Amino acid sequence: MPSCGWLLALCVAALAGDSAGAAAYERTERNCSLSPPYHRGSNTTLQLQELRALMLPLNINAYIIPGTDAHLSEYIAQRDARRAFMTGFTGSAGTAVVTQTKAALWTDSRYWIQAEREMDCNWALEKDVSIMNMAEWLISEVPSGGSIGFDPFLFSLKTQEDYSINLQSSNRSLKSIPGNLVDKVWEARPPVPPHKLTHLPDRVIQRSWQMKVDHIRNQMRDNPYQPTALLLSALDETAWLFNLRGNDIPYNPFFYSYTLLTMDKIWLFLHTERVTEELKLYLNASCNGSIPGVKVWIGTEYTNYALYEVITPEDKLMTTSYSPVLTTKAIKDDTEQQILRDAHVRDAVAVIQLLIWLEKAVPEGKETEVTAADYVNKCRSKQKDSRGPSFDTISASGPNAALAHYSPSADTSRRLTVDEMYLVDSGGQYLDGTTDITRTVHWGTPTPMQKEAYTRVLMGNIEISRTIFPSGTRGVNIEMLGRRALWEVGLNYGHGTGHGVGNYFGVHEWPVGFQGNNIPFRAGMFTSIEPGYYKDNDFGIRIEDVAVVVPAQTKYGHNFLTFDTVSLVPYDRKLIDTSLLSSEQLQWLNNYYETIRRLVGPELDRQKLHEEKDWMLRNTEPFTGSGSSASVCSSSLTLISLAVALLHSFN
Amino acid sequence: MPSCGWLLALCVAALAGDSAGAAAYERTERNCSLSPPYHRGSNTTLQLQELRALMLPLNINAYIIPGTDAHLSEYIAQRDARRAFMTGFTGSAGTAVVTQTKAALWTDSRYWIQAEREMDCNWALEKDVSIMNMAEWLISEVPSGGSIGFDPFLFSLKTQEDYSINLQSSNRSLKSIPGNLVDKVWEARPPVPPHKLTHLPDRVIQRSWQMKVDHIRNQMRDNPYQPTALLLSALDETAWLFNLRGNDIPYNPFFYSYTLLTMDKIWLFLHTERVTEELKLYLNASCNGSIPGVKVWIGTEYTNYALYEVITPEDKLMTTSYSPVLTTKAIKDDTEQQILRDAHVRDAVAVIQLLIWLEKAVPEGKETEVTAADYVNKCRSKQKDSRGPSFDTISASGPNAALAHYSPSADTSRRLTVDEMYLVDSGGQYLDGTTDITRTVHWGTPTPMQKEAYTRVLMGNIEISRTIFPSGTRGVNIEMLGRRALWEVGLNYGHGTGHGVGNYFGVHEWPVGFQGNNIPFRAGMFTSIEPGYYKDNDFGIRIEDVAVVVPAQTKYGHNFLTFDTVSLVPYDRKLIDTSLLSSEQLQWLNNYYETIRRLVGPELDRQKLHEEKDWMLRNTEPFTGSGSSASVCSSSLTLISLAVALLHSFN
Repeated sequence: MPSCGWLLALCVAALAGDSAGAAAYERTERNCSLSPPYHRGSNTTLQLQELRALMLPLNINAYIIPGTDAHLSEYIAQRDARRAFMTGFTGSAGTAVVTQTKAALWTDSRYWIQAEREMDCNWALEKDVSIMNMAEWLISEVPSGGSIGFDPFLFSLKTQEDYSINLQSSNRSLKSIPGNLVDKVWEARPPVPPHKLTHLPDRVIQRSWQMKVDHIRNQMRDNPYQPTALLLSALDETAWLFNLRGNDIPYNPFFYSYTLLTMDKIWLFLHTERVTEELKLYLNASCNGSIPGVKVWIGTEYTNYALYEVITPEDKLMTTSYSPVLTTKAIKDDTEQQILRDAHVRDAVAVIQLLIWLEKAVPEGKETEVTAADYVNKCRSKQKDSRGPSFDTISASGPNAALAHYSPSADTSRRLTVDEMYLVDSGGQYLDGTTDITRTVHWGTPTPMQKEAYTRVLMGNIEISRTIFPSGTRGVNIEMLGRRALWEVGLNYGHGTGHGVGNYFGVHEWPVGFQGNNIPFRAGMFTSIEPGYYKDNDFGIRIEDVAVVVPAQTKYGHNFLTFDTVSLVPYDRKLIDTSLLSSEQLQWLNNYYETIRRLVGPELDRQKLHEEKDWMLRNTEPFTGSGSSASVCSSSLTLISLAVALLHSFN
Repeated sequence: MPSCGWLLALCVAALAGDSAGAAAYERTERNCSLSPPYHRGSNTTLQLQELRALMLPLNINAYIIPGTDAHLSEYIAQRDARRAFMTGFTGSAGTAVVTQTKAALWTDSRYWIQAEREMDCNWALEKDVSIMNMAEWLISEVPSGGSIGFDPFLFSLKTQEDYSINLQSSNRSLKSIPGNLVDKVWEARPPVPPHKLTHLPDRVIQRSWQMKVDHIRNQMRDNPYQPTALLLSALDETAWLFNLRGNDIPYNPFFYSYTLLTMDKIWLFLHTERVTEELKLYLNASCNGSIPGVKVWIGTEYTNYALYEVITPEDKLMTTSYSPVLTTKAIKDDTEQQILRDAHVRDAVAVIQLLIWLEKAVPEGKETEVTAADYVNKCRSKQKDSRGPSFDTISASGPNAALAHYSPSADTSRRLTVDEMYLVDSGGQYLDGTTDITRTVHWGTPTPMQKEAYTRVLMGNIEISRTIFPSGTRGVNIEMLGRRALWEVGLNYGHGTGHGVGNYFGVHEWPVGFQGNNIPFRAGMFTSIEPGYYKDNDFGIRIEDVAVVVPAQTKYGHNFLTFDTVSLVPYDRKLIDTSLLSSEQLQWLNNYYETIRRLVGPELDRQKLHEEKDWMLRNTEPFTGSGSSASVCSSSLTLISLAVALLHSFN
């Protein structure tokens, strides 16, 4: 699924003057006139009154309510949905601010329509989600000398620093408020779930947790700043380090935890009632020992400010953007790579089953966005080691697909017809890996514009996938290849181009990806590649595949990389205008279809799925050229196959 | 000329494992063994002794000596060449650090060989120029609790902050030392030159200095942080604001100055003996008035830390990376665009004259790198409004061209022959504009590898030049197009891809360009585009053109931009393998050659240069296709011409 969480300011800026969302925003469904008072969304008057009453004795003029949890998770549990409780807005990204007289929500273009629908008239919608813009709003609403409260558990160090920088010359100050104020207002807040934790079976692990701990300690030892402890705050950090999984957040196999790792001890902080005796044995766990004076290494992007506050003075601290656990975890070892590839083969079977079923069922006129989402979830659940969907399936027909992050509900679900384009962005959790794939299809006759836009989105996907680049190149430096074919005709899209993905973690596995704060690409990283195009009130296109970074053999150099696509589902042939493709793009496409046949064919045979096999073969017939020269630069494609072959020989 | 000053850490990292410079470094010419003591470079023992003596009473364990001046200039005057005086190393980039027992110089791969040649054995060469690496060195050499001195006039706010961040958890502290210690040691330091200042004639100005001041004050007024003053520290800021030029720095028409602009007054700080009565009249200058209590806006990249120290407390300060003068100056108005285009037409005449002369003279065997550099300088000096070269001409044959920033001297100058490739990177200052162009030629028979590398460098230049992108796209997000054709075969280059350039300022006019800290592209910005390839000890290729960002008409969208190349000199046909070019690239090339004919032809006629006209026509004959399809995507090229036509109609 597309990722927009981190660089929204950039996305929004890029859309200025040409934004589907901006146009849509004009058609607000709210009528916030005072007479008669009109509420379409939930009524938030009471919780606002109570929150404002709590703010008074604390002497804060504003209170910031982020959409994250104490681990800075991108996806959160219901009990952490404080912003949704306060505002009524349930989208996955957004920050609210409350003063004594105003209440405002910042969210990006994906969610403007939804926010207008869900919020009542207590709330104003702000569209520029940069912290700079929020700070400017705060400066205009908070008097000089005033202060702005926040829960230090819900701010990363980086976020706190960004607010501070933007407020520093304004004479308004940030104030860390112990005890979340929303929690005090929220009587029906859900409890922590009682789920037990599990550890991964040996067959999906190459590195035991002890090996991982050794490896991380070596990095601490080699660091010139000589940290003697490492604090892990993000949930996937602890889950990865100990090969443990939980179930605290929907679609994300995480459990609430912190880890403090020193050179000779490990403190694992979690709800201890969830730890079975067997798990205690696995972890050699005891409960003695006290934390010595240490110099703590933390990652500023994922460590909350509350933890930072207790680690002062500063000479006891060492910071990097990401902890060494996140950067180590980003590079999959051979086993992780192989089992993640395997998971994608089984996942392709489920998606192919969906596409076949839709081809037959849609013309009969009874299927909807909701039934389609249910169908693909069911198909996935039948595959080996399935652990449910990796996120809420985006199943969107016609204009609904123009909302890049739409998920259908009973209210909004459209009937699927041969007259509309249909976009399905879905993924599975498997014990061996997490998948995420988007296909866009048309069961009738696409318009020339739909076909051109689809083909140009596909060209973007292919151009990134086939490019060769030096090891250590950053995603943000090559992601324009995903947009260039669209830019040529004045089109674009307003979301990111891809995010990391891995072995049974959250579907957005940062810090790998194409955004500005993502780490450089190295062999063994997995990322989604997902350009798109959205025509407001008409249709939406996205083509998303997961790819692994692999070594590329080149004529003259060493240390060059390319991508090898591991999602294995054919594209809708009807929507591809081959006359727009270069010979290199056509060759890439035919090579990819060969790979699908080679890898998915045997799996379909194994599962005795004959209809699926026939459909797959039909839909992976090679394309013939469009008159483009086939002689130019063909060497690069051959080399990709070589690299892939090389990689397979390691496994 | 290539720009490497700002993102050296990145450049060096990208080269790791494949670096021409790294290999060359192994062949050091220094023999630093103690017996017999061997000094090839200058002897720096005395100044080091004196500096160390000065450090003792100040209680600093290390002293940092940057290569810049109090205005954070990239190019500096001799009197500011403190690092060169201390180390002997004369390259344009590098920082030195001295402790009581060690002395080390950090410079990037362009200068490793030169530094080894120029420095004596008091100095060690360090190759990773990131501030992080320097901090690690300082941590290893300075004891815990120790302090590191620096001259606050030679650190930008940003630099000071970067050192602070890297040292913050190390228990070593930075200490601002008033009075530069090198100046106290440097008895023969040159004085400030006595040059008078001049203001630009009306024919090259559309905006009077009063209009510019109004415009900047409006930006202050509109800013939510409500600054009431603006401090300008970079030399081109004051030069631009007042339409003034000086001559304090070789090749750069600047004069030492600071400006403090409030809402109703302006303080221009400069050496007043240089201001003529006529200039006082032009500036309405008086000397009364005192500076009121103000809130000062400064740019952190170009304001020195000493100024920042006097502006505290912090609520009297507002910071952005660049001052509004730099961001406003970056977008040329219609007059500035037209006169900068005009300057490039005359500049092309001079470069064409050089290339013709070399074709005839080189086979006779008497010409050298030095005589070629002299020749092009002479050709430029004959063009209207010439104000000399814009930098020290890079004239490099064979292996010398593999050093990306080599300039010939009597010692190193090679004879030019038909057996070696030759690279000439040169530029002129004209009253109406600054130029910067690189051409690489071969007068004999290039090897297949030379031809392939040259063609791929050209493909990079063309791919950037012809790309269409949304307004506000950052250079760093599209610069990979300059490298992609090289990456495909495992080649790369270790410098930046381009820098801003403008109307009679420094040849590197930041913050426009393709580096990470450059501002987004808008119509009216000028930048160089200069990919290259360097084969150590063999040859060097660079193709550099200046281009202006212009609106692009597209099929579906608005607010898209592309480049229009304003450098107008044909490439060496002999080095182009057209079979590697796509049809779009060939079409771009033919279109560019048509433009050269259209714009340079009449100028050659006007100057009655018949031989040059014939040569130009011969060298801009259209290329015929290589069998690549001409049908694919040809629309984009037509649209570029349209955009250019559109722009011309504005003038």
